[in-house]
Amino acid sequence: MSLGSIADRLGGVLHGDPALSITELAPLARAGSRAISFLSDPRRAAQLADCQAACVVVSAKAEAAAQARGGAYILAGDPYLYYARLSQLWRSLTSVGGERFPPGIHPTAVVHPQAEVHASAHIGPLCVVEAGARVGAHSVLRSGVWLGQDCSLGERCLIQPGAVIGGDGFGFAAVDGRWEKIEQLGRVVIGNDVEVGANTCIDRGALDDTVIADGVKLDNQIQIGHNTRIGEHTAMAGCTGVAGSADIGAHCTVGGAGMILGHLTIADHVHVSAASVVTRSIAKPGQYTGFFPLSDNASWEKNAANVRQLHQLRARVRALEHLQTPQASDA
Amino acid sequence: MSLGSIADRLGGVLHGDPALSITELAPLARAGSRAISFLSDPRRAAQLADCQAACVVVSAKAEAAAQARGGAYILAGDPYLYYARLSQLWRSLTSVGGERFPPGIHPTAVVHPQAEVHASAHIGPLCVVEAGARVGAHSVLRSGVWLGQDCSLGERCLIQPGAVIGGDGFGFAAVDGRWEKIEQLGRVVIGNDVEVGANTCIDRGALDDTVIADGVKLDNQIQIGHNTRIGEHTAMAGCTGVAGSADIGAHCTVGGAGMILGHLTIADHVHVSAASVVTRSIAKPGQYTGFFPLSDNASWEKNAANVRQLHQLRARVRALEHLQTPQASDA
Amino acid sequence: MSLGSIADRLGGVLHGDPALSITELAPLARAGSRAISFLSDPRRAAQLADCQAACVVVSAKAEAAAQARGGAYILAGDPYLYYARLSQLWRSLTSVGGERFPPGIHPTAVVHPQAEVHASAHIGPLCVVEAGARVGAHSVLRSGVWLGQDCSLGERCLIQPGAVIGGDGFGFAAVDGRWEKIEQLGRVVIGNDVEVGANTCIDRGALDDTVIADGVKLDNQIQIGHNTRIGEHTAMAGCTGVAGSADIGAHCTVGGAGMILGHLTIADHVHVSAASVVTRSIAKPGQYTGFFPLSDNASWEKNAANVRQLHQLRARVRALEHLQTPQASDA
Repeated sequence: MSLGSIADRLGGVLHGDPALSITELAPLARAGSRAISFLSDPRRAAQLADCQAACVVVSAKAEAAAQARGGAYILAGDPYLYYARLSQLWRSLTSVGGERFPPGIHPTAVVHPQAEVHASAHIGPLCVVEAGARVGAHSVLRSGVWLGQDCSLGERCLIQPGAVIGGDGFGFAAVDGRWEKIEQLGRVVIGNDVEVGANTCIDRGALDDTVIADGVKLDNQIQIGHNTRIGEHTAMAGCTGVAGSADIGAHCTVGGAGMILGHLTIADHVHVSAASVVTRSIAKPGQYTGFFPLSDNASWEKNAANVRQLHQLRARVRALEHLQTPQASDA
Repeated sequence: MSLGSIADRLGGVLHGDPALSITELAPLARAGSRAISFLSDPRRAAQLADCQAACVVVSAKAEAAAQARGGAYILAGDPYLYYARLSQLWRSLTSVGGERFPPGIHPTAVVHPQAEVHASAHIGPLCVVEAGARVGAHSVLRSGVWLGQDCSLGERCLIQPGAVIGGDGFGFAAVDGRWEKIEQLGRVVIGNDVEVGANTCIDRGALDDTVIADGVKLDNQIQIGHNTRIGEHTAMAGCTGVAGSADIGAHCTVGGAGMILGHLTIADHVHVSAASVVTRSIAKPGQYTGFFPLSDNASWEKNAANVRQLHQLRARVRALEHLQTPQASDA
Repeated sequence: MSLGSIADRLGGVLHGDPALSITELAPLARAGSRAISFLSDPRRAAQLADCQAACVVVSAKAEAAAQARGGAYILAGDPYLYYARLSQLWRSLTSVGGERFPPGIHPTAVVHPQAEVHASAHIGPLCVVEAGARVGAHSVLRSGVWLGQDCSLGERCLIQPGAVIGGDGFGFAAVDGRWEKIEQLGRVVIGNDVEVGANTCIDRGALDDTVIADGVKLDNQIQIGHNTRIGEHTAMAGCTGVAGSADIGAHCTVGGAGMILGHLTIADHVHVSAASVVTRSIAKPGQYTGFFPLSDNASWEKNAANVRQLHQLRARVRALEHLQTPQASDA
């Protein structure tokens, strides 16, 4: 693929020989002489000096460094986005044997006759689509995906292997020390352009539906509890858990292994750090964090013991303050 | 379905027209004029005022509010349990095409000839049941469930899609910097009325069995390590992990993403909060918690830095105390 | 199986009747009169007194206690390793119907004609092996395992049910509030003697490969992000998450539900405790820990509230110090 044809398709201003042929996309550090690479963060422009790539994609802020390096470069408004689009172009050109996810239902998939699967959708091997379920245009169930009764998937969704969509929510009423099942009568309703990661589970609602809005991206091993609502273009990293009946806004992000408890509301544009636990509603956009900092084990043992005695430590400080200024009050 | 027939089947005292027809179960907030709804917490009786439901199920404490609302109501001892049972009734009446989980083995399931599957059990599509495994009466393996060699499942169990029961426990002996496999020779033995969530894993024991007692409910994405024992009617929410050889009592609950380390004992009626880590045995019933509270990120950074220096802070308080009362000792 | 034949095959010095027949491997506490058992920790030698086993395997440090007990014993350098090897021998002798994982591809597996599966490998029921994927000699895919395009597995690997190897890494570029997919063009490359647990996911790299070195052992429900490298003989317990582009050394261990963030480097011989979050590179071998200690819920609430006000507490201590010694500076 020539640099010229890349710039023709994806834009950007090419500085260099359009006939130069590219055989690989590669990160800066290991890019060889026939690779194209990317500098997404202009503060790291110093890395360009040693880069062997045939061509680098840079923003205006790093243009001087690209020129200093010598070799070709493409000037782009957002090199990371350029990289995303080139990866898509690359994938489409290098897929062997035609289209990667051809329309149709693999012969080993089990699709109920009362399911509605769009003719352009791809249902991979060993998937199950139950009665009343719907799969929209150009959506892909890769392999071993389970889509339960009455659940629906919009257009252009990509469901990674092993995902379970529409399993029962976890609902029981206690009676005499036993648990009585609450049948889960709701559905899972997924919008357009949603990606669901490998072995991720999204439970159907109890009475209401579980709703995943357009453009949501869920990584692997995520658990979404019943009745949850996730707003447009929110993204969650792997191992995140969302308990039941959470109402999560649009354009949020949750870091890996974040845990969001149930029956709460999170505003748009809230960012939860990895391994942090959300126990209450969050009304204000921003970054929220809560995990115990890592130490060498001996330090942790001391600090953990002190955390358990914080209340006493605070009382001791109060007593000292009282000795100094007996009229002091401790808010 | 008429209100009269509901009360006939499930009990409770109906105040209102028995001929009134119900077409939907719905939560209070969105219940329409042909829905039945529930007030499980009488402290929220004020919500009844705006409820449009044809009928609400309430306890005696909320009867006055139900009367003030107008419209029909059913007086029940435990409205939440009533809701559970009505959800079951509803499910049984609305299942299209006959029984939801009909007895038998789906043609795509792989069931070993030496497995024992009760004639009333349901083995869904793409399940695997290995040699010597047993599935009791009326138990259901929904889809893509794996039940390993010699493992057994009692009666009326419900296993959600993708669950893996009887994979190898994680056991290795270190030798010269390598890991030597310890073959896992035990089984998984599951009692009656157990529910196992989607993509949940229960490992077989190393020498002993892993034992899940009657009435246990496990949510999705849970990991149960080898040799673990879980007592009757204990329930665990999604993403919980239990390391090996834990002995967990009856009637316990574990919140989402709880983590229970191995080789410990937990008494009956212990409740572990979400995202909390249990590192030692717990002998006394009660609620136990341990996770770092969430803050805005800037506050967390300050607090996390201070947590790392708690030991020094305590020493400084001690020094101040010593200045005040040189004879003071610091317990 | 006689004691004599065990000692012949596995070594150790047998003290007792070589003709004595053994029918069971069992832990000390429940070993019956025809069982063989093990004492791996000589500090627990007192447990031998009540042990009913026909034979116990002990190290030299516990030999006196084994003699005092009466009955047979085998003296071994490392009883735990002896147990591992006996478990393997036991498994091989008790497998019914011949070899446990016979070479070949189960008829329900979906193996692409362009995949390379070694003739000695075992591909279990309902596995999927995509085009260009490679499975080395004597490797085992148990059931429902997914091995994606171009990914490779070395020799003698054991992949537990439901594992997903080679799903897309989680990569998106933000544009105008939406997420643009970054196609994941790398592979997963797995060495020899690797074990992957049930429902564990290993994502393919974005541009580079995700690399799992020889001898790595991964438990169940683990998530390995794209471009991650895991060094030789590192072991991770269940529910661990590794974000993208982490470079983890050899001979490391990670406890259950450990969380390792991305774009960091961890040295060889680092041990991360369960439920601990690694946010920065670790250059020095050792044990690292970070989780909030568990308390009864009331104590936790007090301590958590105090953690949120640590900064103020520190300021108060500083003020007191200043009153005492106005020239004091607070580092």
